[in-house]
Amino acid sequence: MDKYMLIALKEAKIAYIKGDVPVGAIIVKDNKIIAKAHNCKETNKIATNHAEILAINKACRKLKTWYLDDCVLYTTMEPCMMCCGAIMQSRIKKIVYSVENPKYGCSSLLKSVDIVNNVCKNESELLLKKFFSNIR
Amino acid sequence: MDKYMLIALKEAKIAYIKGDVPVGAIIVKDNKIIAKAHNCKETNKIATNHAEILAINKACRKLKTWYLDDCVLYTTMEPCMMCCGAIMQSRIKKIVYSVENPKYGCSSLLKSVDIVNNVCKNESELLLKKFFSNIR
Repeated sequence: MDKYMLIALKEAKIAYIKGDVPVGAIIVKDNKIIAKAHNCKETNKIATNHAEILAINKACRKLKTWYLDDCVLYTTMEPCMMCCGAIMQSRIKKIVYSVENPKYGCSSLLKSVDIVNNVCKNESELLLKKFFSNIR
Repeated sequence: MDKYMLIALKEAKIAYIKGDVPVGAIIVKDNKIIAKAHNCKETNKIATNHAEILAINKACRKLKTWYLDDCVLYTTMEPCMMCCGAIMQSRIKKIVYSVENPKYGCSSLLKSVDIVNNVCKNESELLLKKFFSNIR
């Protein structure tokens, strides 16, 4: 699981460089990465452009279906309400995330989804702390 | 409000014709429609392509900002968790919807958002019933 989270973290670092909250997400099916994305909300100026949403969109395009029930989503931060809703809409059955999001995290709302957390927690936390300390 | 909801209903009818669950959404700013969209989940085979998400994306592109706090979203059905999350992400302060969605509606999760419901309820309900009776 660390292997995939480190790739999601690479995506988060791209967001960091662009000036977006550093969150990255990837989607894995049959041990193959089928989608990678990073948060582009500020860069694209589009409210829905969180890493998870963009990764789900890419995976749907790649597989030519909205039905991602045999996919695992890796994200460097606990998903917000919008992204949790998208996980349910796409029928993703398992998610792995790195750091909790005490303010906006909504993973408790996910029904029938396996959740693994705290994977590569220190790395993700460090990147987020660095980002927010630069802002303030 | 009926005037705008009837335009959202026109969008819902486009979704109906395409074979998608008939939901339409529009976004209004300063009494001007800045975005119109309909549910394209089945047509586009993309899990996130609900009417509300697509309308928010269009409005952000049009206004060149993710910040839609002076916009009103009209939708023919109570938004799901994903769309409620997108409403919060885009800082929309007011939504108007037509029919409740007892199974997937999540408007109760919206914080600091004015909610008006039951606008043109009969028309939206009829369209949805027609759609689901055709499927079964």
